[in-house]
Amino acid sequence: MEIIDGNKIAKEIKQEILSETQKIIEKKGKAPHLAAILVGHDGGSESYVNFKIKDCEEVGFESSLVRFEDDVTEKELISAIEKLNDDKNVDGFIIQLPLPKHIDEQKIIEAISPDKDVDGFHPENVGKMTIGLPSFISATPLGITLLLERCNINTSGKHCVIIGRSNIVGRPLSILMSQKKMNSTVTVLHSGSENLKEICRSADILVAAIGKPDFVTKDMVKEGAVVIDVGTTRVPSDKTKSGFKLTGDVDYENVAPKCSYITPVPGGVGPMTRLALLLNTLEAAKK
Amino acid sequence: MEIIDGNKIAKEIKQEILSETQKIIEKKGKAPHLAAILVGHDGGSESYVNFKIKDCEEVGFESSLVRFEDDVTEKELISAIEKLNDDKNVDGFIIQLPLPKHIDEQKIIEAISPDKDVDGFHPENVGKMTIGLPSFISATPLGITLLLERCNINTSGKHCVIIGRSNIVGRPLSILMSQKKMNSTVTVLHSGSENLKEICRSADILVAAIGKPDFVTKDMVKEGAVVIDVGTTRVPSDKTKSGFKLTGDVDYENVAPKCSYITPVPGGVGPMTRLALLLNTLEAAKK
Repeated sequence: MEIIDGNKIAKEIKQEILSETQKIIEKKGKAPHLAAILVGHDGGSESYVNFKIKDCEEVGFESSLVRFEDDVTEKELISAIEKLNDDKNVDGFIIQLPLPKHIDEQKIIEAISPDKDVDGFHPENVGKMTIGLPSFISATPLGITLLLERCNINTSGKHCVIIGRSNIVGRPLSILMSQKKMNSTVTVLHSGSENLKEICRSADILVAAIGKPDFVTKDMVKEGAVVIDVGTTRVPSDKTKSGFKLTGDVDYENVAPKCSYITPVPGGVGPMTRLALLLNTLEAAKK
Repeated sequence: MEIIDGNKIAKEIKQEILSETQKIIEKKGKAPHLAAILVGHDGGSESYVNFKIKDCEEVGFESSLVRFEDDVTEKELISAIEKLNDDKNVDGFIIQLPLPKHIDEQKIIEAISPDKDVDGFHPENVGKMTIGLPSFISATPLGITLLLERCNINTSGKHCVIIGRSNIVGRPLSILMSQKKMNSTVTVLHSGSENLKEICRSADILVAAIGKPDFVTKDMVKEGAVVIDVGTTRVPSDKTKSGFKLTGDVDYENVAPKCSYITPVPGGVGPMTRLALLLNTLEAAKK
């Protein structure tokens, strides 16, 4: 059994990005530039955005932050987006989600120019990804396919079972895994699926992306399977200083011994998800 | 075993469209209008476009045809598309595919305004469909979901196995079947899938969309399964006047007795596919 070290792989790829950054600076006279729009003061959103800025620094990217208070109007946000769409100095940008309830999130996403939509949430990017055309692919699915590639895991013809059909993880990952590049047979399961356990047991690659701690138990995993755990639920813990710990969707302790590969939580998919945004920004800068 | 009569269901829905058309005429003073662009003189393309025009007449739609010779330039085609995009009299339009090799098909598709793209091929429509937002859904997947609904086939929680991952049938159908409305567990198989037969045998609903005559044999079908045959391959026949007959992907004669429901070829999915274009045009006219 091999534990997939997402931190180590992400570090390696960051080194590669750093050298790409140098080339871009030589060619264009400036580094790739990622901008972020942050609304309000939610602790989670603040720290996610801070991580993204820190990641940019590590690979030599420029970054900038546009902040708004919680009472920002849709019109003000769209006007800020249009500015970034037109700003030649900015290669790509993101809007940190979720947004306050009075803002139509989908309308905001669709205001982003698809060419700068490094989160890959604009329908045009989702559509191109679905058809198999070059596009910005959202962070978690892109991170997972990279993880599988870097570990030289053979996905071709294999049965990849994905628990969860969300628009940001399960659905796009199912499409990517089924296309010629990864070439898997893909099954998408959800809360209403009959024979869920039995289908999981037939998986060569099992991806859990439902946000239910310890949902995947050892009776659901085939001997020698690859298990990818996307879950990150904060659960109370008396072993950490914060009083909380991150828990995956997989009962790691009991499942791991049966696997050929498994991702831990934290330190598996998470670092790769953060990396994907850098890769998309790099692509945007190359255009 | 029940044979799904696509012609009968399509006829019923056409009656419903006809009465919707009347309402639109009363409200807007004009009938829905579908335009088609046809390039060259390929026999297949000519007859497909003729069918579409005939279908429009049956439900009281207006239709128009814009023709070009094989040597049309990309620029001329795009200019014709832009005219139709701006033409308030035209609710939706299609470009009959395939196009001559010197034309970039994807570029042409992306020139169509997503609001008039009743074939549902524009990346923005594909993306919205993938995310689960209202959009034009391409003809065959829309036709198949309608067929299942009209036959009151319970798809929720059931295992729907789709053979084929094309951008016009297998891929979009897999997404639609997996979303909350149809709520199936969905597996997509392709030519490189391991254990293909075994996975087919686990299907409650088996959809064959690979274009290989008689590919699905009775040992691949579970007793009581619903079988949807999307294949339409022309094979030589000494029993027809034309010397050809349409053959599906399913060995109908031997598979049918095991099924709860099965679509014949022709007369199953085909008529529903033609119908879907009318439904999209109706939606476009309602906007």
